[in-house]
Amino acid sequence: MFNKNFIGALLIGTVSFNLGAQDLPKASPDRMQSRIEKLSEYGRNSDGGVDRVAYSKADIEGRVYIMSLMRSQGLENIRIDVGGNIIGRRSGSDPNAKPIMVGSHIDSVPGGGNYDGDVGVIANLEVIDLMNASNIRTKSPVDVVVFSNEEGGLVGSLAMTGKLKPETLDVMSHSGLTIGEGTRAIGGDPDNILDDAIAPGILKAFIELHIEQGAFLDEEDIDIGVVEGIVGINWWDITIQGVANHGGTTPMNRRQDAMVAAAHLTLAINEIANELEGRQVATVGRIQAFPGAPNVIPGKVVMSLEVRDLEQEKMDRVFSLVEARAKDIARKTGTTINFEFIDVASHPAPTDKRMRSIIAKAAKEAGYSYKLMPSGAGHDAQDMVSIAPTGMIFVPSKGGISHSPKEYTSPDEMAKGADVLLRAILEIDKQKLD
Amino acid sequence: MFNKNFIGALLIGTVSFNLGAQDLPKASPDRMQSRIEKLSEYGRNSDGGVDRVAYSKADIEGRVYIMSLMRSQGLENIRIDVGGNIIGRRSGSDPNAKPIMVGSHIDSVPGGGNYDGDVGVIANLEVIDLMNASNIRTKSPVDVVVFSNEEGGLVGSLAMTGKLKPETLDVMSHSGLTIGEGTRAIGGDPDNILDDAIAPGILKAFIELHIEQGAFLDEEDIDIGVVEGIVGINWWDITIQGVANHGGTTPMNRRQDAMVAAAHLTLAINEIANELEGRQVATVGRIQAFPGAPNVIPGKVVMSLEVRDLEQEKMDRVFSLVEARAKDIARKTGTTINFEFIDVASHPAPTDKRMRSIIAKAAKEAGYSYKLMPSGAGHDAQDMVSIAPTGMIFVPSKGGISHSPKEYTSPDEMAKGADVLLRAILEIDKQKLD
Repeated sequence: MFNKNFIGALLIGTVSFNLGAQDLPKASPDRMQSRIEKLSEYGRNSDGGVDRVAYSKADIEGRVYIMSLMRSQGLENIRIDVGGNIIGRRSGSDPNAKPIMVGSHIDSVPGGGNYDGDVGVIANLEVIDLMNASNIRTKSPVDVVVFSNEEGGLVGSLAMTGKLKPETLDVMSHSGLTIGEGTRAIGGDPDNILDDAIAPGILKAFIELHIEQGAFLDEEDIDIGVVEGIVGINWWDITIQGVANHGGTTPMNRRQDAMVAAAHLTLAINEIANELEGRQVATVGRIQAFPGAPNVIPGKVVMSLEVRDLEQEKMDRVFSLVEARAKDIARKTGTTINFEFIDVASHPAPTDKRMRSIIAKAAKEAGYSYKLMPSGAGHDAQDMVSIAPTGMIFVPSKGGISHSPKEYTSPDEMAKGADVLLRAILEIDKQKLD
Repeated sequence: MFNKNFIGALLIGTVSFNLGAQDLPKASPDRMQSRIEKLSEYGRNSDGGVDRVAYSKADIEGRVYIMSLMRSQGLENIRIDVGGNIIGRRSGSDPNAKPIMVGSHIDSVPGGGNYDGDVGVIANLEVIDLMNASNIRTKSPVDVVVFSNEEGGLVGSLAMTGKLKPETLDVMSHSGLTIGEGTRAIGGDPDNILDDAIAPGILKAFIELHIEQGAFLDEEDIDIGVVEGIVGINWWDITIQGVANHGGTTPMNRRQDAMVAAAHLTLAINEIANELEGRQVATVGRIQAFPGAPNVIPGKVVMSLEVRDLEQEKMDRVFSLVEARAKDIARKTGTTINFEFIDVASHPAPTDKRMRSIIAKAAKEAGYSYKLMPSGAGHDAQDMVSIAPTGMIFVPSKGGISHSPKEYTSPDEMAKGADVLLRAILEIDKQKLD
């Protein structure tokens, strides 16, 4: 025992001295790629993608694989919390230092690809390997997390941050189990789902590495995205009420056609989102006309409106412009237009400014190009902002494609991400973030 | 026997002399209304309308009621033909004269009203009653028809005119029976469905009296519509192909949004039908977006297009303008737009010009206001034009409402229609139409 500790202490001293920013070990593209390939076996489908929906057999097998890697890396106290999250710790040298947490997920959408979530988990493990191999000892413990059911509603991170609503447990998941049943199936405890919630101030920082799911990095040939935040999502159901009537006997100038009003409104929404300065987006993804027969003028149309932006103010501005146009359209088309706010929306979740600086500095020192950018997609990080200084690292997605077997990030791109993650962890470990 | 025939001959002579145009008996609003009310009991629903879909118990009971009226009126050879049509004859005085046929229907759409079809059937019976009461004897026999399954595809009149396609018999009807099974259930013979088809030249004329199903007569306070013809219907399925993408990570200026293209096209269709001179109509009644999630930019939209007009040339013109606009929209939105012609369309069916004059003259001599107008809705008459000089009489629909429990035509309006029908029959009987 004496020898071991002594050697450890010696090595820590050496490391602190020799491994300056320039000399840090480099992530192995080959090792990361082979782990991605191994992980992709769990739930592989005939399209070359995966059906590894949360709580499925494939999800459970993938989780076992990741836990076996964590064990072989010597992570301590590898466990499944009440929310079904896998957590393992690499201990730090300072018993009083707060943990630095890194997390991502391995569950997929139905018909998903091999990179969404997976790259983050593999990068987290890569960083542990690098620190192990170079005997880098941080003051803070490093907690590695695989969040449960990210794709089905950020379940694991909502549980970890104490925000999961009890009724969510009754929601049916793609696995055929409810979220409660599924949480139990992967080793969680739905009856006490908030018992492992982490209070604000416990963690020193949280970082999530993820594929971009957009095409900015790929098209501009940039290595690293420094995420400014996860956009908020507001969602409405729009009901347009006109007068259903016979498509043959009702002259054009006597129609109160809900479909025509819906078309005007769809174009208005598109124009507003296009013409305002900024990066807001607005989408009409779903529409239904009633009664829905080719020979009947629709008396009612229900359609969805989704607005996303990094700033709630901008989302509110988009919506108020849409509302104003809707009033005008309703008047001109002889219809009424009502907006029902759907309460599955999320608020914009800006990342911590210090974390953005740390990640940008890490990219710069590693010699990689980077840019600040929002995340248009949702991530566990958006929950974590409420309990810890949070940062996100993006790596490129080929063609911006995600939720598809065509997802792709090259081994070199993944390795660059892991390099930045390692440097960011070490920098966080040095800084006082309180 | 001698006495009876003798008296009959005397009466006929008297009638021919005394009952000039001014002296014809008048239809009874009360009798017509009470029969409408009695018929409305078969299939009555809680909304005050009827669910008397073809082949249902209510349809069969309604048909029995009508046949009992026909029997009490002394119609001869009351029978159900192979197509399920009820036919009864009031014989004429000239054994060589061709029959004059009057026909309508009593089947309804699901959730239908008490006037569509019914008013025509009751008016036909009213005319028989008037002729019986006044001992009016026409040279031509008068054949009274209740067509089978009008609402489900003009089945009876297609069979009668030899145009019913064999595959139609396999189509499921609202009753839960196929059209073949249903035809058998009401006493027809689906195995020999064309055996009672009537060749062109057999009938002297065909007249259908119907509610307008539009608001022109009601709003302009006109008694009678002299139908110029039944509009043709062309129908397309339009498929718009864009690129499905993440609604959060795809910037507005990089979208190939099939929904936005669909909105442009819907407005273009509406504009074209509005701005061309004439009475053409175009309707987008059905739309579906794929995948149809609020957070996914639709990669595909399928929507219907229905165009109606009295002239095929005008329908072709509307479509070619729509096609041209679609090309433009596809180019601007980065989508492709394809039109698939659906072969359930019908050609425009102009009525016989002589019949229009006869009906107009009948209305004028009865002292009723009238106007020439197209029928935007389909009718059995559109099939009958192929085998007989065909005319149609419209009576007002309150508010233009049809296919709804709110359908309404007043007793006086119905009676005026029957008055015009009687006069038209007598005029046809006098004229040579060959």
